[in-house]
Amino acid sequence: DRPLVLVAGPCVIESEAATLRHAERLLTICNGLSIPLIFKASYDKANRTSIGGFRGPGIKDGLKILAKVKDSLGLSVLSDIHSIEQVAPAAEVLDVLQIPAFLCRQTDLIIAAAQSGRVINIKKGQFLAPWDMKNVAAKAVASGNENIILTERGASFGYNNLVVDMRTFPIMRATGFPVIFDATHSVQLPGGQGECSGGQREYVEYLSRAAVAAGIDGIFMEVHEDPDKALCDGPNSIPLDDLPTLLKLLKSIDALVK
Amino acid sequence: DRPLVLVAGPCVIESEAATLRHAERLLTICNGLSIPLIFKASYDKANRTSIGGFRGPGIKDGLKILAKVKDSLGLSVLSDIHSIEQVAPAAEVLDVLQIPAFLCRQTDLIIAAAQSGRVINIKKGQFLAPWDMKNVAAKAVASGNENIILTERGASFGYNNLVVDMRTFPIMRATGFPVIFDATHSVQLPGGQGECSGGQREYVEYLSRAAVAAGIDGIFMEVHEDPDKALCDGPNSIPLDDLPTLLKLLKSIDALVK
Amino acid sequence: DRPLVLVAGPCVIESEAATLRHAERLLTICNGLSIPLIFKASYDKANRTSIGGFRGPGIKDGLKILAKVKDSLGLSVLSDIHSIEQVAPAAEVLDVLQIPAFLCRQTDLIIAAAQSGRVINIKKGQFLAPWDMKNVAAKAVASGNENIILTERGASFGYNNLVVDMRTFPIMRATGFPVIFDATHSVQLPGGQGECSGGQREYVEYLSRAAVAAGIDGIFMEVHEDPDKALCDGPNSIPLDDLPTLLKLLKSIDALVK
Amino acid sequence: DRPLVLVAGPCVIESEAATLRHAERLLTICNGLSIPLIFKASYDKANRTSIGGFRGPGIKDGLKILAKVKDSLGLSVLSDIHSIEQVAPAAEVLDVLQIPAFLCRQTDLIIAAAQSGRVINIKKGQFLAPWDMKNVAAKAVASGNENIILTERGASFGYNNLVVDMRTFPIMRATGFPVIFDATHSVQLPGGQGECSGGQREYVEYLSRAAVAAGIDGIFMEVHEDPDKALCDGPNSIPLDDLPTLLKLLKSIDALVK
Repeated sequence: DRPLVLVAGPCVIESEAATLRHAERLLTICNGLSIPLIFKASYDKANRTSIGGFRGPGIKDGLKILAKVKDSLGLSVLSDIHSIEQVAPAAEVLDVLQIPAFLCRQTDLIIAAAQSGRVINIKKGQFLAPWDMKNVAAKAVASGNENIILTERGASFGYNNLVVDMRTFPIMRATGFPVIFDATHSVQLPGGQGECSGGQREYVEYLSRAAVAAGIDGIFMEVHEDPDKALCDGPNSIPLDDLPTLLKLLKSIDALVK
Repeated sequence: DRPLVLVAGPCVIESEAATLRHAERLLTICNGLSIPLIFKASYDKANRTSIGGFRGPGIKDGLKILAKVKDSLGLSVLSDIHSIEQVAPAAEVLDVLQIPAFLCRQTDLIIAAAQSGRVINIKKGQFLAPWDMKNVAAKAVASGNENIILTERGASFGYNNLVVDMRTFPIMRATGFPVIFDATHSVQLPGGQGECSGGQREYVEYLSRAAVAAGIDGIFMEVHEDPDKALCDGPNSIPLDDLPTLLKLLKSIDALVK
Repeated sequence: DRPLVLVAGPCVIESEAATLRHAERLLTICNGLSIPLIFKASYDKANRTSIGGFRGPGIKDGLKILAKVKDSLGLSVLSDIHSIEQVAPAAEVLDVLQIPAFLCRQTDLIIAAAQSGRVINIKKGQFLAPWDMKNVAAKAVASGNENIILTERGASFGYNNLVVDMRTFPIMRATGFPVIFDATHSVQLPGGQGECSGGQREYVEYLSRAAVAAGIDGIFMEVHEDPDKALCDGPNSIPLDDLPTLLKLLKSIDALVK
Repeated sequence: DRPLVLVAGPCVIESEAATLRHAERLLTICNGLSIPLIFKASYDKANRTSIGGFRGPGIKDGLKILAKVKDSLGLSVLSDIHSIEQVAPAAEVLDVLQIPAFLCRQTDLIIAAAQSGRVINIKKGQFLAPWDMKNVAAKAVASGNENIILTERGASFGYNNLVVDMRTFPIMRATGFPVIFDATHSVQLPGGQGECSGGQREYVEYLSRAAVAAGIDGIFMEVHEDPDKALCDGPNSIPLDDLPTLLKLLKSIDALVK
């Protein structure tokens, strides 16, 4: 088992300057702790609760900014893709193509992403059992790509709530693919604020510690230098200032269980 | 309140002949009972559990067959759309564009479907609370289309199981849009057979009676002349032979509660 | 299938006068509709959310009041029992001993109640699957009593919420025992008001119609002449004034499906 | 924060010899690791799925055996109580009176247990939200006993399944009372084998690591020298031979997060 990887960044690309600033700070933090970093930011939030929610700069400008992060800082970059048309341009820039949880059952999108040759990170739908991800991964494998990552981001638990079942990690890891825990989306309260999703930032720390102790390959967190001013998912993003202490603890737990 | 409408047809277009045969039998049944019919069949099952599942004839051939159903029998036709690219060709033929449950949060798809001017039927995601559909519908309304139908097809209830919460119907009807109960997908056991979804056909009757009594505008059922030979969703499809008796009872219940 | 039975009464015995007044009004309503009535009221609410909640007159005084209802009005009476010690005195008065949902797995209580020879009504725990009630009923049968009724009052659905799965009714009726739907406890929001349980009275009507249409033997409702002044479970009790219209509709639906 | 405590023992008292043998082995293991031990075994399994399940020696003989464990080994002992009548005799022997999860809302049982002056360990019902335990604990406090422990043993998640929500631990610890994680009952599949509950022993390790990392005061495990021959709950008991390695790891994780 290799040591824990971090996938992190702001929920959405707010601007080129902000994105680079977040990437630099993350890189400094991760270098200090010898934690491999994959930078994440979305160019388009395609499934906001409300039509008025901020969606980002769009694929063209967004990919340019991510390419700049990659070139200037030497970071691997990851972002969501939402349609087959996005696969080709995204695969030119991104190291990891991420399939959003709601889209994990869209066969053609999985196949197109797999055929790009890039690593693909498939988020488990909130409506799926952990063992169902075996069939999802098999669609990518059948398309000739075994560089697959599976990500847990919580399962539907009644209305407007998610629960993270820690059995998910050993079950999904039994596929042989690396498994990531998305700590910040797992504390979302979907639709819980009426016009947008709420979040419980205060539980990110507890769930992260638990997931790392259960055994995972990487942890995914949306971070922000000032979450209360974030244009998206502020309620569940964690402040950059809090990250070093948390990561240090997670790294120690990871070392114990691996 | 207008009387109950039926949306029905085989899960997938198996062939032109089979599709027309099913449409004719459905029309005969509905005419006999004075129940308005919208014919439903999918041209592409885009989210099968397993990559090897039968997916249908594709959009081009599928729409041709649905056009023939429409022209030869005078029926309104409904089918799923899975991407923005499908909206234009689908809208030329279909009377109702259906947004699949997994895609109900894809804002651009809702907008594109709404802008086509056709009626759009949005299935509630298994991961959504009934009151969350107000925000989903608002995306279509903001795009200039108020001809919206909302459909319930079960909510995630633990793993590999769905539950139909009858409170859903009055809650969704409070939006002012007509509400349909999808009786056959609601008895699916998602992923429940390992490589494909199971189904509990025997409960369609009970759930249908309950939903109509709770108060709905229409009922959606996948039917088949021989469900055990169906190429898709056989375990939850109901035999055409059983339909007249069931519909007659549903119509009586509907008359009582409206 | 015999016609629908009503089990109804105030949640708790508030006073002798109030109990008799409710029983008389219920009897008048049911006689007018030819619906068999079993009168229900609790002498002790043993599991209030908060220690300060009103609990009732206790078993001794409570049974005296229920005996008066029985003698003066000729009604069958039903009440909860919470311990083995309560079985003997309760069985002297009550026609039906009710096992509360939280206690449905307490083997000795089931056995003691069964051995009293009275009819026993076992509520399905919020934590049980409908098919699990077969084992519960078997404990009573093994104790020599086959006069068993099974009651559904909702299943845990996330936190502070219940859902009624309409598949429950055919599944529990397959045991051969009569099945009752507890419409008012099913709309509780357990613990949902912090210090007490909330309730959604407005859904009683929809769930009742649905359950009767799915097929049940009886319906259970807590009623009150003035629910907002009820000492217990007001938020989910239905006003006596609303009962005749609802029962008339339920009786019509019942006649259709039986 | 004090270091992790272990509550462990066989599910049920199978015999005096077996009980003493298990207690001695547990004590040796815990002494070797400097982990405080509370010995647990039930004298009566009052809520088996099926009436034919083995229930134990009963309260009288069972308490004698537990007194022997206490006297001969100097261990604190814990066991379940199921009725008010059991409180007095149990409190003579037991250091900790445990309220079973199904009974956590029985106000009189909580009060009687609290008034005994012994420590009381209240298991959270599978049907309760973690924040609801505040009201449960308040009943004991109002009865003059603040020596309360709260235990998580999983929440209902669909049918025949439980999920452990790791947010439960910080939420329940916010009451100020120590919180224990019952690792072996949390992997039960209630009623999942038809006539008895199934269990997933293989997940005890993962859930334990996760819960300790999330932050708890103690861990509860049912152990057996030969789980496949256990008279109760074998499928979720863990072999005594596996315990030292697991405890050592849990102790290390606990040290990291406290």
